[in-house]
Amino acid sequence: MHRIPFEEVQERLTVILQGLGFSAERAGQCAQLFAEATCDGVYTHGVARFPRFVAMVRNGSIDVSAQPERVAQCGALERWDGQRGPGNLNAQAAMARAMELSRAHGVGCVALGNTNHWMRGGSYCWQAAEAGLIGICWTNTLPNLPPWGGVEPAIGNNPLVVGVPRAAGPVVLDMAMSQFSYGALEKYRQRGEMLPVDGGFDEAGRLTRDPGAIERSLRPLPAGYWKGSGLSMVLDMVAAMMSLGKATHQLSSDMLYETGISQMFLALNPEAFGPSPRAAQIADDIVASLHRSKAAEAGQPVRYPGEQTLRIRAENRKLGLPVDEALWAQILAL
Amino acid sequence: MHRIPFEEVQERLTVILQGLGFSAERAGQCAQLFAEATCDGVYTHGVARFPRFVAMVRNGSIDVSAQPERVAQCGALERWDGQRGPGNLNAQAAMARAMELSRAHGVGCVALGNTNHWMRGGSYCWQAAEAGLIGICWTNTLPNLPPWGGVEPAIGNNPLVVGVPRAAGPVVLDMAMSQFSYGALEKYRQRGEMLPVDGGFDEAGRLTRDPGAIERSLRPLPAGYWKGSGLSMVLDMVAAMMSLGKATHQLSSDMLYETGISQMFLALNPEAFGPSPRAAQIADDIVASLHRSKAAEAGQPVRYPGEQTLRIRAENRKLGLPVDEALWAQILAL
Repeated sequence: MHRIPFEEVQERLTVILQGLGFSAERAGQCAQLFAEATCDGVYTHGVARFPRFVAMVRNGSIDVSAQPERVAQCGALERWDGQRGPGNLNAQAAMARAMELSRAHGVGCVALGNTNHWMRGGSYCWQAAEAGLIGICWTNTLPNLPPWGGVEPAIGNNPLVVGVPRAAGPVVLDMAMSQFSYGALEKYRQRGEMLPVDGGFDEAGRLTRDPGAIERSLRPLPAGYWKGSGLSMVLDMVAAMMSLGKATHQLSSDMLYETGISQMFLALNPEAFGPSPRAAQIADDIVASLHRSKAAEAGQPVRYPGEQTLRIRAENRKLGLPVDEALWAQILAL
Repeated sequence: MHRIPFEEVQERLTVILQGLGFSAERAGQCAQLFAEATCDGVYTHGVARFPRFVAMVRNGSIDVSAQPERVAQCGALERWDGQRGPGNLNAQAAMARAMELSRAHGVGCVALGNTNHWMRGGSYCWQAAEAGLIGICWTNTLPNLPPWGGVEPAIGNNPLVVGVPRAAGPVVLDMAMSQFSYGALEKYRQRGEMLPVDGGFDEAGRLTRDPGAIERSLRPLPAGYWKGSGLSMVLDMVAAMMSLGKATHQLSSDMLYETGISQMFLALNPEAFGPSPRAAQIADDIVASLHRSKAAEAGQPVRYPGEQTLRIRAENRKLGLPVDEALWAQILAL
């Protein structure tokens, strides 16, 4: 693993994006989102996704110059058309608009249709939380998960993200509806390890911790079995209905052509009624209560979602972003 | 199991509630919510909860005459104080207000603090969905679940509910953050059955499907392990921060004194921008895609959340509500 300074990564990606037709400003912003995901330790959805992103620009799935446009508005709710622009820039703009609406109306909601993969979902709730707002967002995806009771991919892993502002560092949950991604299964298999818990079915239809068996059956589990399966379905429905965009079943099952997806962005303003030191205290007190609770293993206190992020971010800023050498060579050759 | 006509159940509960000091109107409304939960097949959160509800009125946890009051407002967002009134009436009023806000602002949000157990969470998203609106609501609860990495109850099972309107019957997800409730564990044990999937840890800290072992260890699993655990934490934070109400760690671990809880109610109006036959079609098309997908067992098609409800409701309306005889005798003696 190679360590490359954040700025160098961002600059390199910016240059490539400009070469693809991005304006200088949008190239820098898009590159920053990729670099930040890696910097925050979300290695699967940062720089590692860049080659696929470039391939999707080249195959026409992503329109580099398309900007999201508002197509309908009603008070605190708006519908936007992503026009198949870059998914991370579209999502950032949609959350920025939901935040603006929440400053005026207490709550703001943007339904974004016809967009592209947002890369790291957590980015947009960090965006809200770092501005003092609660963010809630989700996306649908191509069919990549068998629903509970089914054997073929018919639902998406539809990540759900919730971010809560906190002076000592936001709490940000970023969860896909699959228990393990295919990327995670691959890593366990390569290390010769079994999963810590059941992760899917084997080809005989038995629950298993064997990552290779799940890769062969193509039957990973929804998180919480029937629960994550049901949650995935309703998230898809709400995003598609509110944006009038595509639902999971309408999306290409070829990830290089997963375009035109639907997303929801909600912002809630904890200070809508005035300064609220009490709200800030509530978040801190909840964190303290978790840290106080008895841990299963000594020295491994219970953690809140995103608890490691600021530490990892600081480390990667200091030492450089860890980027696989083959990946970096691939990016330099783009 | 006894079958008692819906009206008889509702009338009997109404009389008891009036005896406890409820006004005639509120007694009827509260009794209806209990009877409807049972009628819809949510037997754990309907009439079966009534004796505990009465005990909490008698011990002072629930103030029968308290009405929720708005304490702050900003556009589409309001904060209400439940004043420790009956939880189901408070929740119904909060969702009604969120719905009203969504008709004016596209989206509406009510943060309700200082309330009581809402019984069946699904009630309030059926309420929204039957009125053509998308409902999203959640509640915190007393600490009844060890977080991932912990061994003692430090988070709530914090049910999350999402309802989507549909002409052929709403889609309503009503999921607690535990994989199995203690009630469910007890039923499996009494039938001498193992759980279909891991449901918690045994006393040696191993994952197990043995319901009795989990009842002894008091370590049921969050749905999706670390995922449901993290989701429970952020739902608690948002509800407590927005309502300025209590967080899970501040609630009594004695369920007869679980009072002063915090809840969130959101409504989204799919027709905020005008009539939207396309939105209705989207929901139907998603359902059709699920029904078309290949099932794990022939004749057991993939189902959406709440798919059985209308059938069960019709059956129980026709045959009478199934109520355990000992429970009914207990209620008659209240």
